[in-house]
Amino acid sequence: MSFIKLVHGAGAREMWKLIEKVIINNVPPEYRKIENGVGLDVLDDGAAIKIGDKYLVFAIDSFTVNPIFFPGGDIGHLAASGVINDLVMMGALPIAFMDTIVVEEGFPIKDLDTIIKSMTKILFENNIALIGGDLKVMPRGSIDKITITGMGIGVAEEVIIDKNIREGDKVIVTAPIAEHGATILATQLGLLDKARDLKSDSKPLTNTVLPVIRKYAKYIHAARDPTRGGLSSTLSEWVYGTDLTIIIDRAKIPIRDHVREFLDALGVDPLSMASEGVAVLAVDPLVADEVVEELHKKGETYSTIIGYVKKAPNKIVSGKVVAITEVGGKVLVEPKSVNLPRIC
Amino acid sequence: MSFIKLVHGAGAREMWKLIEKVIINNVPPEYRKIENGVGLDVLDDGAAIKIGDKYLVFAIDSFTVNPIFFPGGDIGHLAASGVINDLVMMGALPIAFMDTIVVEEGFPIKDLDTIIKSMTKILFENNIALIGGDLKVMPRGSIDKITITGMGIGVAEEVIIDKNIREGDKVIVTAPIAEHGATILATQLGLLDKARDLKSDSKPLTNTVLPVIRKYAKYIHAARDPTRGGLSSTLSEWVYGTDLTIIIDRAKIPIRDHVREFLDALGVDPLSMASEGVAVLAVDPLVADEVVEELHKKGETYSTIIGYVKKAPNKIVSGKVVAITEVGGKVLVEPKSVNLPRIC
Repeated sequence: MSFIKLVHGAGAREMWKLIEKVIINNVPPEYRKIENGVGLDVLDDGAAIKIGDKYLVFAIDSFTVNPIFFPGGDIGHLAASGVINDLVMMGALPIAFMDTIVVEEGFPIKDLDTIIKSMTKILFENNIALIGGDLKVMPRGSIDKITITGMGIGVAEEVIIDKNIREGDKVIVTAPIAEHGATILATQLGLLDKARDLKSDSKPLTNTVLPVIRKYAKYIHAARDPTRGGLSSTLSEWVYGTDLTIIIDRAKIPIRDHVREFLDALGVDPLSMASEGVAVLAVDPLVADEVVEELHKKGETYSTIIGYVKKAPNKIVSGKVVAITEVGGKVLVEPKSVNLPRIC
Repeated sequence: MSFIKLVHGAGAREMWKLIEKVIINNVPPEYRKIENGVGLDVLDDGAAIKIGDKYLVFAIDSFTVNPIFFPGGDIGHLAASGVINDLVMMGALPIAFMDTIVVEEGFPIKDLDTIIKSMTKILFENNIALIGGDLKVMPRGSIDKITITGMGIGVAEEVIIDKNIREGDKVIVTAPIAEHGATILATQLGLLDKARDLKSDSKPLTNTVLPVIRKYAKYIHAARDPTRGGLSSTLSEWVYGTDLTIIIDRAKIPIRDHVREFLDALGVDPLSMASEGVAVLAVDPLVADEVVEELHKKGETYSTIIGYVKKAPNKIVSGKVVAITEVGGKVLVEPKSVNLPRIC
C-alpha cells in the first residue's frame, strides 16, 4: 500500500503524478471544464468560464504555512496575496474573494483577528470584495493552529494559458527569487537570528505585473508565480511533455546576496525555493524588451530576461530545462522536491 | 485573552458572534458584496454576482468531519453534497466545482482515491464539472488525516435570500431530520453497534428540491439546509434581529423513530442535530400546499409544513422560534450549541 509523503505536496513531479493518479484519472475529459472555459484539462493557476465576450476566472488555494506569522507576512497576508497572484497569472483583474478558516480549539482570538485584518487589508487595498466564507473549529491536537483556504474571482478579456508557450519566447523573471522559501526555511530551522535580513516577498502583483500582463496579453504565452517548487518547477512544468526546451542563464536570475548566501550555506538550490511576489513570464520576442521596460516603470525594477524557449535539439533536453551555469557549463534543471513542509 | 472554543464552530449563536467580531467587523460595508450581488451583508448559504439578467452563485465550505468514513457517506461525498446543497438553497443550478485537499503525511493513497471517487461521483451524476483545485500535505501529527474545501459555482435566474422571510410564510421541512448528526455522534461515541440503523442522509438535493425551488422561486422567501446547529439554528437565524417569530409544531417535524430513540437516550435534542439531505423552506402561504405536493412528486415524500411565520406578539418571542410541544405547551427553541466537533 502507498501512503502520502511530504514530497507529494512539494509542487514538483511527485505531486503532479499523485494529482494525475487520484484526481485527473477520476475525472472524465467532458467533466474537466465548462464549455469554452479553462479547467482541469490545462492544470493552470486557475479555472475560467466564458461569459459573453469575457472570462470569469477562479483560483482556489489552501494555505498551511508554518509558522503562521513570519518576517514579511502571515498566513492571512499569504492567502490573499497567493490567490490574487493566481488570478493575475491568468490575466484576470481580481474582483471578489471568499475564504474558509479551519482553526484549532484554543487558538487566540486576537491572533485570528490579526490574521483576518492582514488578509482583508490586502483585499481592500486592491478593491476586492470579501463576499462570503466559512469557519470550522477542530479539537485541540487535530490541527496545528490554523489553515485558510482562499478562493478568488477575477475578470479577464483574454486568459493566459501556459500551454501556449512556444519556440522563441523569452523568459522574464520580475523580482528576486526564493525570498519566501528561504524565510520559511530559516524560521522552521530556528536560524532566523543568523539571517536577520530574510523576509518573505509575499505581495499581490495587481499594481505592478497585472497592468503589463493585460496590456501585452496577446504576446504573453505563459505566466506563473513560482511558489511551491520554485522557478525550477514552474519552468519544468511549462515544457513537460512538449518538444521544447527552456535555456536559462543562472547568472541573470535576480536573487539578493543574503538570500543566496543563506541557501548556499545549507546547500539548497534557490531555483527550488518558493517566491510569493514574483512572476515568471514567457513572452513573444517581439515585445520582450518592451515588457521588461514596462515592468521597470511599474516598479518591478529587477525584471529581466533570464532565458528563452527553443525546439529541443535532442531527446535528452526535450521537455526539460537547461541552465547555463555561472562558469559557462550546461546542466539540466530538475523540478526539485525539497522536503520542506508547509511552505505556503 | 479569549481563545477559540469548539462551540465557536457549532453553527449557533457563539459562532455568529465570533464571525461578526473577527470577520464582519473587519469588512467595511462597501467591500461586502459586488454591486447588485449577494455577499457578506446577508450571511446566506453563498454569494452571488449579477451578470446580465442572471446570477452566478458561489458557495464555499470546509469539511473536517470525523470519522472521514461513516455509514451513508464519507468526507468526499459530504463535501460534494454539502456545497451543491448550499447552491441549491440559493436557487442555483450547480455547474462547476473546485476543491482543495489538505492531507496528513502517511495517509493511505487508496483512501484518498476512494474519497475523490466518492466526491466526483456525486458531481458527475449531477452534471457538474471539476474545473480545478489544490493539494497540500501537512506533516504527521499536524492535521488529523484530511480536510477538504469545496467551492461550487451555480447559475440562477433568481436568488433566494433568506432575509426575505415574512409574516404568513409557511415553514416546510423536506425530509426526516438529524440523521447525519446522530450518525456522527454515534460513531464518535463508539455507539454505532448499538444503533445499527443510523445512516447519514448526506445527498445532493439537485433532483428533488432544486426543481421545486426554481419553479416557485418567487414564492420561496427562505431556503436553507439545516447542517451545523440543525433545524433550531436555521430557524433562529432566519428571524434573529427581526420582529417576527416562527411557530413550529414539534409533532409535525419528520424524524425517524430509531433516530429519535437514539438521541432521546442521550438527552440530545434532534432539532439541534445536523441534517445533510434536508431543506427547510419558508414559502408564501398561497403556494405552500402546492410546493409540498410537488416535493412529494419529486420523491421527497416526507415533505410537510411544520409551522409558520408571524409578527411577534411580544418582546419575549420577537426574533425567536417557538415550538408547540407534543403535549400542547409552548417553549422557546434556542439555537443549540451542541459541543459536537467535526460534524461536517
